[in-house]
Amino acid sequence: MNSQYEKLMRHVEKTEAIKAALTLFGWDTETLAPPAAVEFTSRVMGTLSSCYREAVMEDEVKELIAALCEHKDLSAGQAAVVRKMKKERENLEKIPPKEYREFCELQARATTVWAKVKRQGDYESFAPVLEKILDYCRRFAGYRKKEGQSLYDAMLDEYEESFTKEVLDPFFASLKKEIVPLLKQVTKKNGTIDRGPLHASFDVNRQKEFNRYLAGYLGFDAQRGVMAESEHPFTTSLHNHDVRITNHYYENRLDSAIFSVIHEAGHGIYEMNVDDALTLTPAGGGASCGMHESQSRLMENMIGRSPAFWTPLYPKLKETFPDQLSDVTLDSFVRMINKAEPGLIRTQADELTYCLHVMIRYEIEKELIDGDLGVKELPQVWNRKYEEYLGIRPQNDTEGVLQDVHWSQGSIGYFPSYALGNAFAAQICHAMEQEIDVEGALLKGEMSVITDWLREKVHRFGQMKTSRELLRDITGEDFNPRYYLDYLIRKYTKVYAL
Amino acid sequence: MNSQYEKLMRHVEKTEAIKAALTLFGWDTETLAPPAAVEFTSRVMGTLSSCYREAVMEDEVKELIAALCEHKDLSAGQAAVVRKMKKERENLEKIPPKEYREFCELQARATTVWAKVKRQGDYESFAPVLEKILDYCRRFAGYRKKEGQSLYDAMLDEYEESFTKEVLDPFFASLKKEIVPLLKQVTKKNGTIDRGPLHASFDVNRQKEFNRYLAGYLGFDAQRGVMAESEHPFTTSLHNHDVRITNHYYENRLDSAIFSVIHEAGHGIYEMNVDDALTLTPAGGGASCGMHESQSRLMENMIGRSPAFWTPLYPKLKETFPDQLSDVTLDSFVRMINKAEPGLIRTQADELTYCLHVMIRYEIEKELIDGDLGVKELPQVWNRKYEEYLGIRPQNDTEGVLQDVHWSQGSIGYFPSYALGNAFAAQICHAMEQEIDVEGALLKGEMSVITDWLREKVHRFGQMKTSRELLRDITGEDFNPRYYLDYLIRKYTKVYAL
Repeated sequence: MNSQYEKLMRHVEKTEAIKAALTLFGWDTETLAPPAAVEFTSRVMGTLSSCYREAVMEDEVKELIAALCEHKDLSAGQAAVVRKMKKERENLEKIPPKEYREFCELQARATTVWAKVKRQGDYESFAPVLEKILDYCRRFAGYRKKEGQSLYDAMLDEYEESFTKEVLDPFFASLKKEIVPLLKQVTKKNGTIDRGPLHASFDVNRQKEFNRYLAGYLGFDAQRGVMAESEHPFTTSLHNHDVRITNHYYENRLDSAIFSVIHEAGHGIYEMNVDDALTLTPAGGGASCGMHESQSRLMENMIGRSPAFWTPLYPKLKETFPDQLSDVTLDSFVRMINKAEPGLIRTQADELTYCLHVMIRYEIEKELIDGDLGVKELPQVWNRKYEEYLGIRPQNDTEGVLQDVHWSQGSIGYFPSYALGNAFAAQICHAMEQEIDVEGALLKGEMSVITDWLREKVHRFGQMKTSRELLRDITGEDFNPRYYLDYLIRKYTKVYAL
Repeated sequence: MNSQYEKLMRHVEKTEAIKAALTLFGWDTETLAPPAAVEFTSRVMGTLSSCYREAVMEDEVKELIAALCEHKDLSAGQAAVVRKMKKERENLEKIPPKEYREFCELQARATTVWAKVKRQGDYESFAPVLEKILDYCRRFAGYRKKEGQSLYDAMLDEYEESFTKEVLDPFFASLKKEIVPLLKQVTKKNGTIDRGPLHASFDVNRQKEFNRYLAGYLGFDAQRGVMAESEHPFTTSLHNHDVRITNHYYENRLDSAIFSVIHEAGHGIYEMNVDDALTLTPAGGGASCGMHESQSRLMENMIGRSPAFWTPLYPKLKETFPDQLSDVTLDSFVRMINKAEPGLIRTQADELTYCLHVMIRYEIEKELIDGDLGVKELPQVWNRKYEEYLGIRPQNDTEGVLQDVHWSQGSIGYFPSYALGNAFAAQICHAMEQEIDVEGALLKGEMSVITDWLREKVHRFGQMKTSRELLRDITGEDFNPRYYLDYLIRKYTKVYAL
C-alpha cells in the first residue's frame, strides 16, 4: 500500500505545485500586478491550468487511485487525499480539455473586465461576458450532473456537498419568514444607535498598526502568514505555512477594516491549523466553502462583536485614537458595531441583513440556471428584490447587480455557502459554549482557549471530514438552522431592547 | 514551416508559463512571503523546475527544433526563439534530472540560509552549504563544457557568451593597472568633497514619493511595471508587460534609494522595450547579463550622475526636502553623488571602485573553480584582496565574504558581467553621443530622446542578437574596454580636478 501511496504522492506533488502557482498568480493579480499584465497573465494561468489538468489526468493516477480505494489500512489523512484526488479526476474527466482551458482563461480575464465595468456602472458591457461565463458553467454542470439532478443542484454540490435546493429552500424560507419582520422591528428603533463616531477621521497608518496588532491577538501567525491590501478583503493560502489575508482601509470607516481583519483572520487561522500531514495535498484546505465561512463569521460576529471580546481590547483602540473615541464608552462602541440597518452592499452588511443579501442572490441564481431568467433582466430583478426584502433600491448597477466579483469568476452556487456559513457558525458556537467558558476566555483576552478548541474540533481535519460530518461529530446532530435563527433573534432583541 | 513553428510555440507556451511561475515565486519570496513558507516554497519550486525540465525535454521539441533549424525563412525573432530553445535543451540534456531538481531545491533554500548567516556573520555555518552549491556548479559545468575548456570558462560562457578568461584576464589587468593608481590619487583629495548633507534625516515616505516620480520620469511605465521593497534592490520580469523593480530605503542615505531606482529602472525599461513579438518566448529578455547591466549602469552613472540630468530634476528634490537641502547647490550635490571612496560593500560602491569589487570576486572564483582555493580559506583571501586593492579590511564576514547573495544561488561566473556591463555601457554611450545630443536632451528633461535611442539600438532586439553582435552593430567595433577606462579617467580627473 505504502509504495502505491508514495507513487500517488509524486503526482500530487506536481498537481499541488501547479495549484500553488495558480494561487500565487491570483493573489498577485489582486494585490499588486501592473494593469497591463492581465492579458498575458491570463494566458499564463490558462496554460498552467492545462498543465494541472494534464497532471491530474495521467493514466497512472487513475490506476493508483483505483488500487488505493481498495485498501482498508490508509490513515484518515491518506484516505482523504485519495478521495479528493478521485473526485477531482472524475470532475475534470467529464470536461473537454479545450473547454476547460478556454474557461480558465476567460475566468482570469473576466475579473478585470468586471472591475472596470463595476467602476463605470456599465452592466450592458458586462452582460455578454457574463452570458459566456454562464454558458460554460451550465455546460460544465451538465457534464457533471447526476441522472435527474437539476443544473443548479449540480452547481451547489460543487461548493457544499449535499446542500441542494431541497435543503436550501426551507432554510431561506425560514430566514425570510423570521428575519424580514425582525429587521422591520429593528429598523423602527434605529434612531437609538448613532454610529457617527465610527465615521470620524481615522489615520490609515494608525488603523493599519491596530489591525496588525489585532490579527496577532486573534492568533494569526506572522511567521506563516502575511497581510496586504486589495480592493476587497480576501484570504488565500498556498498551503498551511503560507496563508495570506488582505484588507482595505477607509479613513472614515473605523470598523470596516477591523471587522475585515477579524473575518479574514478567521479564515486564515483555519488554514494555518490544518494538520501538517495534509500540507500540499488536495485535502489540505478547509472542509468546504460553507465551513470556511463559518470560521470567519464565528470570529467576526459571535466573537468579534461581543462585549466580552472588546473588554480587554477597547482600551488599546482608544489609546490608538484618543481624540476620536474619548467620549465613546465600551458599551456604546459595542452597540455601534452591532447596529443593523438595511443597506445595498453585501460586503458592508451587518449581521442581521447579511443573509437577506445572500437570499436575493440564491433566488436569482436559481432562476438564472434552472428557471428562465435572462442575463439582460438581471438588474431589474435585482433591484426589485432589494426593494422587497430590504426596503431600499439601488440607484445604479455599481451598487446593485455589479457589486460582487463572484459571477465573473464563474462561481455560481457559491453564494448560499455564505449563509450556510453563518448557520454552521451558530450551531458550532452553541456546542463550544457547552464545553468551554467562551465569555470568560474573551474577558481575560485568552483567545487561544477558543482557537485551540476550534483547531481540535474543526480546523485540524482539513478535508478529512465533510461539513455534515464535522457538524455531527461536534454538535451531535445534523445541520440545524434553528441555532442561527435563535441566535439572531436573541441577540437583536437584546441590542434593541425589543 | 509555420505549422512547425506554431507547434513549437505550443511547447514554448508551457515552458514560459512555468518559468513565469518560478519568477513570481522568486519575486514573492524576496518581497513578501512569510518566513515559515520557505521550506515548502522550495519544494514547490523544485517540483516546478522538474516540470519545466520535462516540458523542454519532450521528444517533439527536439524534432521540431531539428526541423526548424533547417528552415531559412524564419523571421529574426522566430530564429532567436528556436536558437534559445535549442541551447536550453542542450544544456538540460546534459544534466541528470535528479541532480537538476535537487540543485533547484537547494538553490531555493540556500538563499534563505545565506540571509540568516549573513545577519549573524556566521561564515562557518554557510561553508558546507556553499561547498554543496559549488559541487553542483562544478558538476553541471563539467557536463556542459566543451573539449579542452576549463570549468570556469564553461561557467562564464553561461552568463556572457564568448567572454572567457582569455577576454577577461586582460580586461581586469588593465583595470588593475589604471584604476588602482587613479583611486589612490582620488583618495588623497577626498577631503574636498563632503557628503554630510546626504546623511541628514530624510523621511522615508517622502523619499518613496520622489523615487516613484523619478521612475516615471525615466520612463518606467506604471501600467506595465510595479515597485516594491526588498532587502536588496533588484529587477525581475514575468514578461515585457509585467516588469518589477524593488528598492530599499534608508532614512540617513538620500542617494541610496535614488540611485537604486535609476539603476533598476534601467534594467526595467530594457525589459519593457523588448519587441512584443518576443513576449513570453525564451528570447524575450535582455541579450545577456552583461548587456542588461550595461543598461542599468548607463542609466545610473553616465546619465544619472551627470550635471545635465540633475539640472531640471534637482529643484524637485529640493522641494521635497527643503530643510535638508536648502544650502546645497546643484553643483555641490552633483559633486557629492560622484565622490569616490574605497568601501567594503559592492552594492554601495561608487562608480570608480565598483569594478575593483568585481575584480576581487573574479579572481576568487577563478581560483575556487580552476585553481585550488578551498571554501574554508575564502574569508581570509577575500579580506587580503580588499586590503590590497582598496586599502581597507572587513572587520567581519557580514561586510566581507557573506555580503553577496550570488554564490548562494549558484551563480558562479556571474560577477564579471557586472564589470563588463560598465564597459559595454561606456562603449554604447560613446556611440550614442555621436548620434544624438544627450546633454541637450537631459537639460530639457527629455528622457525619451535617450530611451528611444536605446530601444531602437539595444532593447527591442531582446535576445535576437548577442552582446557582441549588438556592440558591433551599434558601435562599429568589437568589445573595446578602452572607452570605459577613458571615461573613468576623464570623469574623475574632472570631478577631483586632478
